Amino acid sequence: MQTLENRSTSLKKPEKFVYFFSADETDGNAGMKDVLGGKGANLAEMSNLGLPVPPGFTISTEICAHYYENEQLPPWVKPEVESALRKVETKLGKKFGDVANPLLVSVRSGARASMPGMMDTILNLGLNDQTVEGLAKSSQNPRFAWDSYRRFIQMYSDVVMGMNSSLLEVTLEDLKEAKGVHLDTDLSEADLKELVKKFKELVSQMVGRPFPQDPNEQLWGAISAVFKSWNTPRAITYRELHNIPVQWGTAVNIQSMVFGNMGDDSATGVAFTRDPSTGERYFYGEFLVNAQGEDVVAGIRTPQPITSREAKKAGTKSLEDVLPQAYDQLVKIYQKLETYFRDMQDIEFTIERGRLWMLQTRTGKRTASAALQIAIDMIDEKLISEEEAVLRIDPASLDQLLHPTLDPKAQKTQLARGLPASPGGVCGQIVFSSEEAIEWKEQGKKVILVRVETSPEDIGGMIASQGILTTRGGMTSHAAVVARGMGKCCVAGCSEVEIDYKSETLRAKGYVLKKGDLITLDGGVGDVYLGEVKTIDPVLSGAFDRIMKVADRARTLKVRANADTPKDAQVSRQFGAEGIGLCRTEHMFFGADRIDAVREMILADSLAERERALAKLLPMQRSDFYEIFKIMIGFPVTIRLLDPPLHEFVPHTENEMKDLAQRIGWDLDRLRMKLKSLHEFNPMLGHRGCRLAITYPEIYRMQVRAIAEAVAQLTKEGQTISPEIMIPLIATDRELEILRDLAKLEVERVQKEKAIRFTYTIGTMIELPRAAVTADKVAIHADFFSFGTNDLTQTTLGLSRDDSSRFLGTYVSQGILARDPFVTIDQEGVGSLVKMAVDLGRRTRPDLKTGVCGEHGGDPDSVVFFHGVGLDYVSCSPYRVPIARLAAARAALLARKGQH
Amino acid sequence: MQTLENRSTSLKKPEKFVYFFSADETDGNAGMKDVLGGKGANLAEMSNLGLPVPPGFTISTEICAHYYENEQLPPWVKPEVESALRKVETKLGKKFGDVANPLLVSVRSGARASMPGMMDTILNLGLNDQTVEGLAKSSQNPRFAWDSYRRFIQMYSDVVMGMNSSLLEVTLEDLKEAKGVHLDTDLSEADLKELVKKFKELVSQMVGRPFPQDPNEQLWGAISAVFKSWNTPRAITYRELHNIPVQWGTAVNIQSMVFGNMGDDSATGVAFTRDPSTGERYFYGEFLVNAQGEDVVAGIRTPQPITSREAKKAGTKSLEDVLPQAYDQLVKIYQKLETYFRDMQDIEFTIERGRLWMLQTRTGKRTASAALQIAIDMIDEKLISEEEAVLRIDPASLDQLLHPTLDPKAQKTQLARGLPASPGGVCGQIVFSSEEAIEWKEQGKKVILVRVETSPEDIGGMIASQGILTTRGGMTSHAAVVARGMGKCCVAGCSEVEIDYKSETLRAKGYVLKKGDLITLDGGVGDVYLGEVKTIDPVLSGAFDRIMKVADRARTLKVRANADTPKDAQVSRQFGAEGIGLCRTEHMFFGADRIDAVREMILADSLAERERALAKLLPMQRSDFYEIFKIMIGFPVTIRLLDPPLHEFVPHTENEMKDLAQRIGWDLDRLRMKLKSLHEFNPMLGHRGCRLAITYPEIYRMQVRAIAEAVAQLTKEGQTISPEIMIPLIATDRELEILRDLAKLEVERVQKEKAIRFTYTIGTMIELPRAAVTADKVAIHADFFSFGTNDLTQTTLGLSRDDSSRFLGTYVSQGILARDPFVTIDQEGVGSLVKMAVDLGRRTRPDLKTGVCGEHGGDPDSVVFFHGVGLDYVSCSPYRVPIARLAAARAALLARKGQH
Repeated sequence: MQTLENRSTSLKKPEKFVYFFSADETDGNAGMKDVLGGKGANLAEMSNLGLPVPPGFTISTEICAHYYENEQLPPWVKPEVESALRKVETKLGKKFGDVANPLLVSVRSGARASMPGMMDTILNLGLNDQTVEGLAKSSQNPRFAWDSYRRFIQMYSDVVMGMNSSLLEVTLEDLKEAKGVHLDTDLSEADLKELVKKFKELVSQMVGRPFPQDPNEQLWGAISAVFKSWNTPRAITYRELHNIPVQWGTAVNIQSMVFGNMGDDSATGVAFTRDPSTGERYFYGEFLVNAQGEDVVAGIRTPQPITSREAKKAGTKSLEDVLPQAYDQLVKIYQKLETYFRDMQDIEFTIERGRLWMLQTRTGKRTASAALQIAIDMIDEKLISEEEAVLRIDPASLDQLLHPTLDPKAQKTQLARGLPASPGGVCGQIVFSSEEAIEWKEQGKKVILVRVETSPEDIGGMIASQGILTTRGGMTSHAAVVARGMGKCCVAGCSEVEIDYKSETLRAKGYVLKKGDLITLDGGVGDVYLGEVKTIDPVLSGAFDRIMKVADRARTLKVRANADTPKDAQVSRQFGAEGIGLCRTEHMFFGADRIDAVREMILADSLAERERALAKLLPMQRSDFYEIFKIMIGFPVTIRLLDPPLHEFVPHTENEMKDLAQRIGWDLDRLRMKLKSLHEFNPMLGHRGCRLAITYPEIYRMQVRAIAEAVAQLTKEGQTISPEIMIPLIATDRELEILRDLAKLEVERVQKEKAIRFTYTIGTMIELPRAAVTADKVAIHADFFSFGTNDLTQTTLGLSRDDSSRFLGTYVSQGILARDPFVTIDQEGVGSLVKMAVDLGRRTRPDLKTGVCGEHGGDPDSVVFFHGVGLDYVSCSPYRVPIARLAAARAALLARKGQH
Repeated sequence: MQTLENRSTSLKKPEKFVYFFSADETDGNAGMKDVLGGKGANLAEMSNLGLPVPPGFTISTEICAHYYENEQLPPWVKPEVESALRKVETKLGKKFGDVANPLLVSVRSGARASMPGMMDTILNLGLNDQTVEGLAKSSQNPRFAWDSYRRFIQMYSDVVMGMNSSLLEVTLEDLKEAKGVHLDTDLSEADLKELVKKFKELVSQMVGRPFPQDPNEQLWGAISAVFKSWNTPRAITYRELHNIPVQWGTAVNIQSMVFGNMGDDSATGVAFTRDPSTGERYFYGEFLVNAQGEDVVAGIRTPQPITSREAKKAGTKSLEDVLPQAYDQLVKIYQKLETYFRDMQDIEFTIERGRLWMLQTRTGKRTASAALQIAIDMIDEKLISEEEAVLRIDPASLDQLLHPTLDPKAQKTQLARGLPASPGGVCGQIVFSSEEAIEWKEQGKKVILVRVETSPEDIGGMIASQGILTTRGGMTSHAAVVARGMGKCCVAGCSEVEIDYKSETLRAKGYVLKKGDLITLDGGVGDVYLGEVKTIDPVLSGAFDRIMKVADRARTLKVRANADTPKDAQVSRQFGAEGIGLCRTEHMFFGADRIDAVREMILADSLAERERALAKLLPMQRSDFYEIFKIMIGFPVTIRLLDPPLHEFVPHTENEMKDLAQRIGWDLDRLRMKLKSLHEFNPMLGHRGCRLAITYPEIYRMQVRAIAEAVAQLTKEGQTISPEIMIPLIATDRELEILRDLAKLEVERVQKEKAIRFTYTIGTMIELPRAAVTADKVAIHADFFSFGTNDLTQTTLGLSRDDSSRFLGTYVSQGILARDPFVTIDQEGVGSLVKMAVDLGRRTRPDLKTGVCGEHGGDPDSVVFFHGVGLDYVSCSPYRVPIARLAAARAALLARKGQH
């Protein structure tokens, strides 16, 4: 359970908690997001700007905690809400619950951070068997009134009364079939009256009480439902994904209704002030004539583009064409909003009988490449400074730019084309439910979630998938919006594809694909391909390069890459790595041409045998190092000597053992015994790292020789290489002292043999708490410290990375750990050991070079921490180097602003 | 390799490094052990006291480091040694190397701490083909001269020239057989001359160079050999066992020879001023007529008792009978020495033609019970203060008093009787070599090492064994001395037993026992029994109780016991535990009557199933706690909630699985899958401790209820119980906050149900580095901290206890770790986290109770550290409680003296 209710047991009544907004009288403004939520604050600001906003009011986020304290609202909320409602009635000359001219309202959630689709919304509230007649009369459109009523019953029974919404949906479908019509809009007034009757009967039958006729009961039910929805499983999942604290709570917005479904002079739509996919500067959006807002977002009808330029491409009519006056007014408003907020806006509007109403504006979600383009354009437009531009890009979002896309030259068979909802090229096995996506992911499979459309319940499944394919909905459908936010590839509205959930098959172009079959998505184009298509490394935009240059000027932290092979080294350089912070020598041991020599070394019964095997490995290691050094000329390269326990290199299955026994001419039993003797109960805490070299010094001696000989060769070729030799898993200063001497001796031996001098440094990984606590002593023998924060997290928290998945989820959801500590560094625990080690180490050796080479080096929040601790560099996987560069810039800029 | 040579690379020449001693001129004294070694300092002091000490000199321990720096002695040593040698010549009117009246010397090692049998000794140095004739003439005893020469060749070729000594031994035995004699003393002068000739030939043949005839060459070879012997494997093993730093080095003592083998008016012996086995105050020792010192120690001839009282018992003659004048003089000297040194002395003497010479005095090794008796007696004799008495007892030595002895009522079949060399009652499988003892021990077997006699090479085997049985040698033989020092049971000189190494059998009283057969030793009596004999808990002497009372007055640290069962609790009370510091609830889970319920709980697929299984366990746990609380009335009891990973409780072999599947009515495959899902890669860092309760709160809820109901019952019975509930494996304050609330709620529920109030506290184990580093926050929710130093050592050092045996030996021998960190706390690493946690915790909560419940709580050196850190208590296994009490007193007394 979430624990918002535990925060306090006797909350005080706030001075003010109901904030009114209208064209001529508004309590709030855009700066009050904490109290009003994002939606409420922006409604207030739009009102302040004189834009046409239907009057209404916001119940502040503080009341959310009050609600959770007693699972109900305090009594003092009611009079304030009622008085605000009276004010709305006065403004509009309507009365809530009035039979003649009823005021109808929407009730919406609104948290501080935008949580699209996560919270529930109720429209048309105030309708009942009497007021529906009033609405019919006042609107002179009985069909519209009954349609609104049936929509209200559907939403309210689902969201507030907890009824299974598919029952009413089926009733609607049955009726359409009986009447032989295809669209909801084809139903007549009489049909809708009949539908309302059936709906009410069904609700009464299923919920056990009649549908509420009292508008006040409806209102309080809806307000409570909004507060309740803050803690639904899907809201919790979203918050976890986006690191939104449970304490923030949600506000409730109650606003007078305007109707986009009052006929063909009415419409509703959503728009972005720039293209959220590419960042291109043009007005981008979709609308539906004679519809209510949720029709656009839910993706049930396919909406039309707002601008003529786009409509022409799609062969349909634009808002410009259909309602030119409202369109002109909308264009003026969007420009005003963008200039005012100095950022791309995501707006919602409704046109009621030709009159434009603004329902929402907020900073628009965008893809990473759009974010870059917009930031760079806005610098050029003098809207924002370079610093602001850097701070506006979420470093983590770059991830989606840096992943491979489909190889244009690859052979492919197109299956279908949908909307390019979220970019990237991915391949996976198809599954048809989120549950299955999660399950298969846990089994290590790569899956693509295929759904007619997605809903907030699918968030878990979307997270687990490589990509998402939907057959309905547009670019602003749930699937598209959420996938873009996650940086996940998504092809939406791919109507050529037919899905049969029951038989778990997908049909397109005559192909029938079953669950588990492979497909490939190209989210940048919207294509779906049969089977697996080759991918290629991303090509980065000019905007990317410009932002990176700005970031590089701002940052002080160096960024290196973890690279084990010449290929990795190449990629690292392309992404701007300023050296290699971690070259894991053991990865080189697994090559087919060397694994047998490695195994001979491990199985050796004597020093002589071991040295014989090592002699075979020497030339291979030397050439690995030679290649890597050559690529990284001019940059530092840190090579970590052998780290994993030896049993990682030996076969474990019976068949592999047989093969090996035969190849090396051993008796199988002898091999089995030997391998058994290598088994460890807790290999993470076993015979590995520098411990191997304490017992078998000849292993490190060979590796150091390979490094030194490679450097000698390059030195002879006229290059200057200065390798950094890193000794892992140091627990005591004495280990480092012994192995530093060993390495030094070997390097000097090679220098003498080759009659060549070069500089080099010897340092250690700090990855055990003991090394951190005694860092002043360890530093005596270390030229550098590189924090191995993966293992340091495992030991400091006593948490095995391989085993913790069983309970880490519970830990994060219960707020025991704020984040997965293997993704973002645990500052309080692991971080304080890092800080301690840096301080102690520099006390001994003020010029000690310090860096981090755990996965945290590529995590933006962790990078901010490492900047604060004063490390010299971070090192991360090649694809995360730009993320780290941007995060480092962000850290430096925030520090300058005094925010960190 | 040992690293003494690394200590410095350019040592300075000391001002003085050769110290002379003689009856009328002596440079050193007893306070100079650091420089002169124990033997040298005491030779100097005896000289100062005017006792008859053969003149000689000591080369200081500082020269040892010089020797290791260059693997040879610096040139400036030679003139100083030669000048001291000249002085000895002058005192005695003999000349080193003189053909007519040669000076012979002994060369002995002498480290700061006594290392019996570990260092090499050379006697009769200075003999060669010429001087042997001179000695024959001057002593008027040619047989003696040639016997001395052959002994010298044997020793020198072995110790200095590195020749296999058994070759000369075999030659000697062959000659005896050829001559039809039994004892060495039966060989004639001619025989010995022949032997010398053969010895020299053999040496030349085997070593490749002739036996050195130049006395100076002999001398320098012997001095180097002493320095070299400081770093032999056996010396290293001994140092490790006794925690002697490699840096101390050894001194070399060169002393003029006196001879106990010059005929029947000559003798040599060793004696203790009190009985080293019991502590009884009488003169205790052994001697051999016409023998050299090593004959007594080596155990080849069985020596006679010194006093008539003992000789009568053995049916032989005493020194008192044989050489009454010398005996009288010896009695006066021993009394003088004991009064002077204020401690029991171990002395060596030689009588040369009726004249008594003192060769050594040192503080005598003794059994733990003797140490207690002597300490108490010396308080009564006003020789020492109570404080001194406490400080004189090595807390670790109590171990041998606290282990079970044989049940006198048990049925037993006596196999043989030997000497009661070291007390205790043990049972084990017999093995005939140290290698096998070590191997079998590693396989988890309990072994008894059976040898004709032991040598320093056997130390490893002796450590690995439960007890030692030898068929030759007396109470001062190698086996006896070393076993007493280790607190190991030993029956020595058991001549009724016949050993055949080849067939690996032991014969006695017609029984033939093979390797692996069980025997039982009673080291207190000297008995050997067939098979396994029941043992009983030790009965402690009055001296023990008196010392404990003195210790209890001195200490401030409380001592509790780790006790899981009512029986453990009983034993703890008997040993003076002041509460239970760790009651591991999981040990109760393994009972035959409950393991199935535990497994049902683990295998449960739903909360309901799990709760059903837990309901079965509740009454069992409640009655366990009830019994333990009842025994500990008036004392605190800390109960740790479930800690190990669940997979520890499930079967692992195929057969056990089959059984279980049948019993609980599961399909075997389903069971196998379920068990597989519980497997962990690093269980030490896995789903255990409080993590189990975060995911399955119902487990701790049941346990807390069991505790609370047990306390409620006892409260109803009029008792006051205040349980301490301990939550293990806390990494974050939030875990403790959640589980503390859970426990509190459950206790309050029980209190309400039973309408009974009682006080209780809730605390945590600090066993993860993160908990230590964030102890200020953890302490918010903790009434107490108990340091789980076992797991804290594993995580801080990243060292799995189960896997580290593979390299921990190397680590200790290379000085990387001073001690096994699982035995004695690693102060620098783990200790500094303990200190940090105590300081941070008390900052939040000044009244925080702190203790330690890892095995370190019973380790004397660790206890001193815990006292220093300011813990409130230590908790250890019941049998170690007295050790901890004494160590705590020692810590308090040393702190008062400003030594810690």
